[in-house]
Amino acid sequence: MRVLVQKYGGTSVAGAERIRAVAERVAASRADDHAIVVVVSAMGKTTDELIALARSVTPDPEPRELDLLLSTGETVSATLLAMALRARGCPAVSLTAGQAGIRTNAWFTRARITAIHPERLERELQAGKVAIVTGFQGITDEADVTTLGRGGSDTTAVALACALRAERCEIYTDVDGVYTADPRVVPEARSIPRIAYEEMLELAQQGAKVMHPRAVELGQVYNMPILVLSSFVPGAGTLIAAGGPVEIRRRVQGIAHDTDVAKISLAGVPDRPGIAHAIFAPLAEAGVSVDVIVQTASFEGVTDLSFTVARGDLQRAVALVQPVAETIHASKLASASDLAKVSIVGTGIQSAPGYAARMFGILSDAGINIDMITTSDIRITCVVPRDEVQRAVKALHAGFELDKQ
Amino acid sequence: MRVLVQKYGGTSVAGAERIRAVAERVAASRADDHAIVVVVSAMGKTTDELIALARSVTPDPEPRELDLLLSTGETVSATLLAMALRARGCPAVSLTAGQAGIRTNAWFTRARITAIHPERLERELQAGKVAIVTGFQGITDEADVTTLGRGGSDTTAVALACALRAERCEIYTDVDGVYTADPRVVPEARSIPRIAYEEMLELAQQGAKVMHPRAVELGQVYNMPILVLSSFVPGAGTLIAAGGPVEIRRRVQGIAHDTDVAKISLAGVPDRPGIAHAIFAPLAEAGVSVDVIVQTASFEGVTDLSFTVARGDLQRAVALVQPVAETIHASKLASASDLAKVSIVGTGIQSAPGYAARMFGILSDAGINIDMITTSDIRITCVVPRDEVQRAVKALHAGFELDKQ
Repeated sequence: MRVLVQKYGGTSVAGAERIRAVAERVAASRADDHAIVVVVSAMGKTTDELIALARSVTPDPEPRELDLLLSTGETVSATLLAMALRARGCPAVSLTAGQAGIRTNAWFTRARITAIHPERLERELQAGKVAIVTGFQGITDEADVTTLGRGGSDTTAVALACALRAERCEIYTDVDGVYTADPRVVPEARSIPRIAYEEMLELAQQGAKVMHPRAVELGQVYNMPILVLSSFVPGAGTLIAAGGPVEIRRRVQGIAHDTDVAKISLAGVPDRPGIAHAIFAPLAEAGVSVDVIVQTASFEGVTDLSFTVARGDLQRAVALVQPVAETIHASKLASASDLAKVSIVGTGIQSAPGYAARMFGILSDAGINIDMITTSDIRITCVVPRDEVQRAVKALHAGFELDKQ
Repeated sequence: MRVLVQKYGGTSVAGAERIRAVAERVAASRADDHAIVVVVSAMGKTTDELIALARSVTPDPEPRELDLLLSTGETVSATLLAMALRARGCPAVSLTAGQAGIRTNAWFTRARITAIHPERLERELQAGKVAIVTGFQGITDEADVTTLGRGGSDTTAVALACALRAERCEIYTDVDGVYTADPRVVPEARSIPRIAYEEMLELAQQGAKVMHPRAVELGQVYNMPILVLSSFVPGAGTLIAAGGPVEIRRRVQGIAHDTDVAKISLAGVPDRPGIAHAIFAPLAEAGVSVDVIVQTASFEGVTDLSFTVARGDLQRAVALVQPVAETIHASKLASASDLAKVSIVGTGIQSAPGYAARMFGILSDAGINIDMITTSDIRITCVVPRDEVQRAVKALHAGFELDKQ
């Protein structure tokens, strides 16, 4: 049985007409001799509306109850799609996360998939039916409904594809693939035909919204090809798969940017063991994610240390770091929230000479000041002033000739 | 553990404010040293809206999918009520029908409860939590979600009360009890303090909307006291329980009426075995419920036969009966849809002399023609012209002195 998993996002199923359009596409894929599993998100803004409804009852809804409440959103879209398929003569059945055997831990609102028991799912596929599974959710061993948090439906789709040893996992969204840069910023940006998991991961982590890193990571672990396509316009999309052909490696694949960046700087930090832990442990305990960390070389036993957090976390982070700064006798604590990150991503660019220099040169030529620099194996990231990030993205896109195939 | 089951209908949970009011009432009942199970319906018009949504996708939604879709309505209200209770410091947990162990057969849209496995429910109650169960639904042995059809949430409540050996089952609704007649028709109608199961059953079957006969029947089988109360105004309500005190028996308890009545009459039907079966079997197979059946005495080997059906079923019923009428050589087939039923209900009234004569006299004095008559042990029903039924109800309510305690 050749299995194909297709995931349709909220905009793809917003309204009866779009649901019928999805049904048409699914039916066509099935005619192509595949067993089809469809993963759906909640229709349009349903999840936001349900959250608002919960908040109208209490400002701080209980996570377990919130998850069960939110899970109704995908149940609605799954059943409607099943009806639409059956109405056009295509056998179909909707399955809740429980029915599809998606087990998670009990971390409500941000559960992790622990196992998939696909017996029912396989039975329905064997019976010739399209199985429509509610995305974004699972059940605990106690049969409580959980939601997977951000990127949940993509994760459901990739996890099911892995469990069913699918041929590939198709992610239908409102853009026709992964772009060399955000096309709203760079009109010349083009869809990337093929990208390696690790490159996609870096792009996603650095701000590309099209796929959540979590789903990409899962795909990488199981080596499951993921094809990102538009629900609305035809096109080949972007294939996320194991390291692409050699000729497209060692080049910049895409530019990511993220405007949700705030910075905290500590000056005059004593350079001795345990200091970093003293600063970052309270942040970790409070659930504040720290992104870029930069520490300058030690000079006369003291060093400067800067790190970035999401803008929404800045106030909390400052409050947590303030007492530590006093305890360790840092000379100064400063913060800024008018920053952004821009990254170039491509396998091998970090080990190959010249990419970093070229990036800094392009930004310098554009008159853009670099505040912080950080790198990974396949990425170079610069923190720049927020009001200059769009210019930075455009300059890098042109400078690395990403508008050319 | 003294268990109380409370059921709140759709109007009682329509909106955040009403949900908080229900939470207040539930919390008060719990303070009264009871373990509380709450059964909720979907908020306001949610079920109708979901049906409309399904119909926007396909005119004829698949029953299994429709049931899973509709089940989301009660899940929403159950989780919101749990949040509201927790927000006021009252431990609470919502349970889907599956989590609450409500098993049904696989008759989608009209499933029957086959068993209740209350282990989880009992565990939550033992832990001191209010358990909020989604009404109107169950799961099959295959873990498919079903809905129970009309009267479903009342049935869920009474069934859970029986399974948990609750002290009683409280049904909160938008009226403050079972009335001697529809108060919209008879302003003097009053709430009946106590009524026997069989009387309530007859009232419900004959058109009183406050409780569905199915739930009453279940209460009767397990001898579970059911208290019908208003969510909105305080009051003692109506207790539905085993045969009331002797002094209130052998009197008319209430007047029911139903305007959803159509009649089919067959004249000149040969009076021989098998004829009734020939007429009613096709109706039963087609799922058309036949209500009142009246056959006149045979005269010269032919008889007249009339029966009533719901108005919405009339066309279908005529189409089914027409060929049978020809086969059996009935001389005439007629139908009418401008009828209504009015019934007096009270234990012992049928075996006691005078009630029937008094009923016919009251209607005659009011100048209302009686089209058909039918009786049960505790009920006398007359079919009358629809445009006279309100006058009939008023005349009977006054004639049997139901406005007096």
